Amino acid sequence: MAPHIVLEESGADFESVPVDFYAGDQRKPEFLRLNPKGFVGVLITDRGPISENAAIMAYVAQAFPKAGLAPADPYDFAQVQSFNLFLASAVHIAYRHLSKPTLFADGPEMAKALAAKVPELTHRYFGMIEELLADGREWIHGDRWTISDPYLFVYASYLQRGDRGDPDRFPLVCAHRERVLARSATQRTLEREGLGDPGRRRPAIHAARFAALDRR
Amino acid sequence: MAPHIVLEESGADFESVPVDFYAGDQRKPEFLRLNPKGFVGVLITDRGPISENAAIMAYVAQAFPKAGLAPADPYDFAQVQSFNLFLASAVHIAYRHLSKPTLFADGPEMAKALAAKVPELTHRYFGMIEELLADGREWIHGDRWTISDPYLFVYASYLQRGDRGDPDRFPLVCAHRERVLARSATQRTLEREGLGDPGRRRPAIHAARFAALDRR
Repeated sequence: MAPHIVLEESGADFESVPVDFYAGDQRKPEFLRLNPKGFVGVLITDRGPISENAAIMAYVAQAFPKAGLAPADPYDFAQVQSFNLFLASAVHIAYRHLSKPTLFADGPEMAKALAAKVPELTHRYFGMIEELLADGREWIHGDRWTISDPYLFVYASYLQRGDRGDPDRFPLVCAHRERVLARSATQRTLEREGLGDPGRRRPAIHAARFAALDRR
Repeated sequence: MAPHIVLEESGADFESVPVDFYAGDQRKPEFLRLNPKGFVGVLITDRGPISENAAIMAYVAQAFPKAGLAPADPYDFAQVQSFNLFLASAVHIAYRHLSKPTLFADGPEMAKALAAKVPELTHRYFGMIEELLADGREWIHGDRWTISDPYLFVYASYLQRGDRGDPDRFPLVCAHRERVLARSATQRTLEREGLGDPGRRRPAIHAARFAALDRR
């Protein structure tokens, strides 16, 4: 969903193709040819595919510089990358322990033990993000919306579900989530995916993920 | 170590500052001011700190474009980023389950169960990288060395230790590791860190990590 919102913000002419994650579409040969890792999503460009959400979003920002989705200055860009890497390698992994425990350890007891630890991790991670927002900034990196904002939006939305930590501890993160949700690009993405607010819907309904076809 | 090698390759004038990970230096107030997440390493620039290895390496590549550490073209850069994100969010996490199991589940039984699954994950991940190298390319992204090469080098070196998978299954990854090891920038880094080949030394000796001070 985060790269999908970024594409909407970019003004790019793209097509989104549903990939049914729960039906195992990401393991089918035609998908594995695009992304041998078997992860969704993947962005198909004229040059070829790009996988990994944070890489896709940075690419869209660089390919559509006029949209101002990420700063061009190397230091400022590095701050965006640093934040996104933190989401990809810390927050995302905490969530994966809940959603895919058998990837990491066998048996239902282990799944329970991994799940039990998730709120501790999310509280620590979102606590750091809450602190970042404490100076009253509108977006993660200041006054300007960047590709970090929809990326956090997705994880903050999942936090709303209550099974991976207490969202009420992080009022600034929740308010940020509402600001991203209110943007027209986010609303267009929700409409296109047809799944509603990711903070409200049940995980079981979250069946479709999207690959995006860049048709510039 | 990977950002450290990249700094050596860049030609930047920098200073490296040891941070004793096992003594808990990364939890001391003076370090937390630089990186509130309490992770090593961190790069201090004239503009301020940058954390997360893949963000640091991309920054150094962009700040020293003449060194040719990563392609400037957005699509080619995205391929570098995609590979690095895969290392950061898949390979690195598999290793963390071995080195820091208590972060993810409580008790020695859980640590054992997490560790037992690590070779399965590393075999899958390194299998994908082995396949990438099967066309005979010298470096991860083709004929030119990029910031992905020292990053893989570090994880391929840890694989040599034998406690997280069988390195003999991946002869192309091992040969790539030797090529990175043979570069003068890598050798200068090993000398500077004073810890020897990371594929040979014991984890227990791996006591010092480095923060780098960019003094351009």
